[in-house]
Amino acid sequence: MATAGLIVIGDEILSGKVADTNTPFLISELRGLGMRLCEIAVIADHTATIAETVARFSSRYDAVFTSGGVGPTHDDVTIVGVAQAFNLPMQRHPDLAALLTAYYQSLPKAEGSTDEAEATRRELLARNLRMADVPAGTQLLSGGDLKWPVLCVRNVHVLPGIPEIFRRKFLAIRERFRESPFTLHQILVRSEEGEIAHILDDIAARFPDVALGSYPRMEPAADHHRVRLTLEGKDAARVALASDELAQHLGPARIVSRS
Amino acid sequence: MATAGLIVIGDEILSGKVADTNTPFLISELRGLGMRLCEIAVIADHTATIAETVARFSSRYDAVFTSGGVGPTHDDVTIVGVAQAFNLPMQRHPDLAALLTAYYQSLPKAEGSTDEAEATRRELLARNLRMADVPAGTQLLSGGDLKWPVLCVRNVHVLPGIPEIFRRKFLAIRERFRESPFTLHQILVRSEEGEIAHILDDIAARFPDVALGSYPRMEPAADHHRVRLTLEGKDAARVALASDELAQHLGPARIVSRS
Repeated sequence: MATAGLIVIGDEILSGKVADTNTPFLISELRGLGMRLCEIAVIADHTATIAETVARFSSRYDAVFTSGGVGPTHDDVTIVGVAQAFNLPMQRHPDLAALLTAYYQSLPKAEGSTDEAEATRRELLARNLRMADVPAGTQLLSGGDLKWPVLCVRNVHVLPGIPEIFRRKFLAIRERFRESPFTLHQILVRSEEGEIAHILDDIAARFPDVALGSYPRMEPAADHHRVRLTLEGKDAARVALASDELAQHLGPARIVSRS
Repeated sequence: MATAGLIVIGDEILSGKVADTNTPFLISELRGLGMRLCEIAVIADHTATIAETVARFSSRYDAVFTSGGVGPTHDDVTIVGVAQAFNLPMQRHPDLAALLTAYYQSLPKAEGSTDEAEATRRELLARNLRMADVPAGTQLLSGGDLKWPVLCVRNVHVLPGIPEIFRRKFLAIRERFRESPFTLHQILVRSEEGEIAHILDDIAARFPDVALGSYPRMEPAADHHRVRLTLEGKDAARVALASDELAQHLGPARIVSRS
């Protein structure tokens, strides 16, 4: 099963200035794609931390996604962090430089634009051309109606933090990651967790290929269930078998419902 | 400034079965306390991963908080992971064992309870007494009206994943972590980020003690601002000075509002 890791880069998330909506979005998307998300890191805009985290994630997971820290300002250090993670030199990418140049040329000109205004525009382009500097060997992934491609360095996919753009870019490259789907069964029980823990231990040991989850509630719900048990895996027959055996061990008196 | 790290332990978060509400809660609480949250990790219910992450966070941050993976079932491996992080043996804690025993003795007895029912109760207690097994040297933090104390191993505070209990426990120990507050200034500007990046670079370099954030919007807001700039730090006078200098460099034509 293909594995994934997500690295969210941004002081604004850690300091509570901006709520992180990219993480719930990606969790849901990866689930739908049948990928197993193994780890999420939320880290500061700090090059060495980014480099270390990217290197660790890249070696452990099939695909890595980063969110945030791309752009023209001093706190946009993701790309440099990714380069450091793999000891890659930064190189100006001709396709990105052409995109940036075209963008700055397309900006509306002020009426009766002077030589001074034109000089300012050229200066602006020169300063922001550093957005075309990427780690050597960076692949440009295009798709859908993306104007600016997704940068891919080895297995690391660099996405911007602004939620609308994060979503649009991920959706444009999504189908590259589709796997076989997960099967999920669920049993709601009225017992406390402590009372059924030994039954769960037994099923978990005998079905290592089925992920067994046990989620207690603070107070019994309206339908009297105290614990939600989930069984999940890629092999639908094995999940169904584990679910049947678990239901049998629990006995009908403990079960509120199954789905 | 005291630093903090948060480790969220739970397959249910990574697989999207449960939305993580403990992270936004703790981000907001730590901010209010004046602590700097430096890193968040969301990891699976896997002992070795927990041990590695706890060891790394513990050595880097003043205080570490964990959420989830405590309880009596097979997927509750946080405590063992914390013990492994520090190579500590597990020991039965007499105070926790007494609390558990009292709890199981307090459970309502069935009418005309038989010897068999009593044996079941004893068996239940014996099985769940493993919840009293903690790493050697664990401190028990009590506070407020907590029935079950917060386990603290070195600088790692172990909190349960159920949101109501996570909150109640954190609030009971919160005042141990209070620091001097943050000062936050904000400037909304109508320019694009690329146009002002060099000004931000300059302020960021001259005020290393003030965190300068730049958050672009997709589309200009109703008040025409395209970028939100934030300045934040512990020294109110330095934050105010950085904010004034930044406003001066930007010039009034670029500024929508300041606060």
